[in-house]
Amino acid sequence: MAEINVVALPGLPEIVRGDELGVLIANAVTKTIRTVNIGDIFIVAQKIVSKAEGAVVKLDEVTPSPAAEEWAAAHQKDPRVVEVIFRESRRIVRMERGIIIAETRHGFVCANAGVDASNVPAGFVTLLPPDPDASAERLRDALIGAFGRSVATIVSDSFGRPWREGVVNVALGVAGLRPLVDYRGCLDPFGRRLESTVMAIADELASAAELVMRKTAGTPVAIVRGAVEWVGEGTGRMLVRDASRDLFR
Amino acid sequence: MAEINVVALPGLPEIVRGDELGVLIANAVTKTIRTVNIGDIFIVAQKIVSKAEGAVVKLDEVTPSPAAEEWAAAHQKDPRVVEVIFRESRRIVRMERGIIIAETRHGFVCANAGVDASNVPAGFVTLLPPDPDASAERLRDALIGAFGRSVATIVSDSFGRPWREGVVNVALGVAGLRPLVDYRGCLDPFGRRLESTVMAIADELASAAELVMRKTAGTPVAIVRGAVEWVGEGTGRMLVRDASRDLFR
Repeated sequence: MAEINVVALPGLPEIVRGDELGVLIANAVTKTIRTVNIGDIFIVAQKIVSKAEGAVVKLDEVTPSPAAEEWAAAHQKDPRVVEVIFRESRRIVRMERGIIIAETRHGFVCANAGVDASNVPAGFVTLLPPDPDASAERLRDALIGAFGRSVATIVSDSFGRPWREGVVNVALGVAGLRPLVDYRGCLDPFGRRLESTVMAIADELASAAELVMRKTAGTPVAIVRGAVEWVGEGTGRMLVRDASRDLFR
Repeated sequence: MAEINVVALPGLPEIVRGDELGVLIANAVTKTIRTVNIGDIFIVAQKIVSKAEGAVVKLDEVTPSPAAEEWAAAHQKDPRVVEVIFRESRRIVRMERGIIIAETRHGFVCANAGVDASNVPAGFVTLLPPDPDASAERLRDALIGAFGRSVATIVSDSFGRPWREGVVNVALGVAGLRPLVDYRGCLDPFGRRLESTVMAIADELASAAELVMRKTAGTPVAIVRGAVEWVGEGTGRMLVRDASRDLFR
């Protein structure tokens, strides 16, 4: 019977710049969950990756541009935060009703270019990691080093969606996993060839992980077991639709 | 330790119009998984709900409009399928490069207004159920009747997303579950009030379920255990962003 388990990892300390996050996660596993299986998928919240990597900005050191000042004044925002959002963006997709939807330098399209003030001390904001795939790869290397077993990693964040309420977790960085599974060319039970069924497995894994991460504050890592069939090669980059193929950019 | 389990339900027969789907699901549970816990969440693929409810169209009985004929000819599509897509739409959101993104009569925005030819016999297409929340409610009533325990239900389908490759499962209909969980007003560990964190739990549950549904052909139902904290009242309708609040419609 097909079954997966999703478990939140307790026991992580508050993460600060310079922390060896992969080592801290391995230590938490050793203290609490104890076992690691081949094919376990570690989903790690972007927020702690950014903190460990120093992708954090002190707002006192930001001088807002006139455009940032103007938008901030019109929408009761902190002009320094708006300035950081502009700097993190390579394209503004929508900027209406006080909401900024931006394409980041990585190509992610999300609110505020991923700049976020939650779960950091007052006066600071976090940025998305500069290279989430490299972050995932480093975490994976550390976990394989600690346990001697092949595991996969996902760096995840919560993104809003057009047309639907609420945010869901998606995969920014991926290592050791096929993020997309292509069923095109497979036959359905009626012998019909499936035409457009490419599943975004890594995003679904990130969403599954969020269900246990959120439950208890302070568990920004979850482990998915039983999904070994998707172990393989791939990147989070593969989940970003190229602008040339996008009807909404 | 926060943990959820996701299991695919084996043993369902091929579903046809008029089937009592809730009873068939309960029978499959009795034969295979055996136990049902309070707060178990049953995720049921839209395809079998549509089949049971007769939300299926025989293409031989469809006469395409000139507009459907023209689009079909330009993009190598079946004009009868295009006609059905038009009939299921209340607004065309994008119609470019052979792709139709439409808003259905329910307010869902998705490719082809949810009209789908996979997993049905040649010459037929399925539509989305006319009222997925009512479908979820009926399934829930049947399961509570069979097991005497309060469970929740989600009717799910795979939707594409702007800006990202691949499709993910989302919740169309919901019964017995809070689809959105609002963390606004909660304090983060630094005492900062969270401003915009409304999680689309029902969509994340649907995505988690898809991870086991897809694995084995012929398992269009999955059960999520351990998510009892989200049991409550709500509908899939609550996940549909109103057009007036949507920057992309």
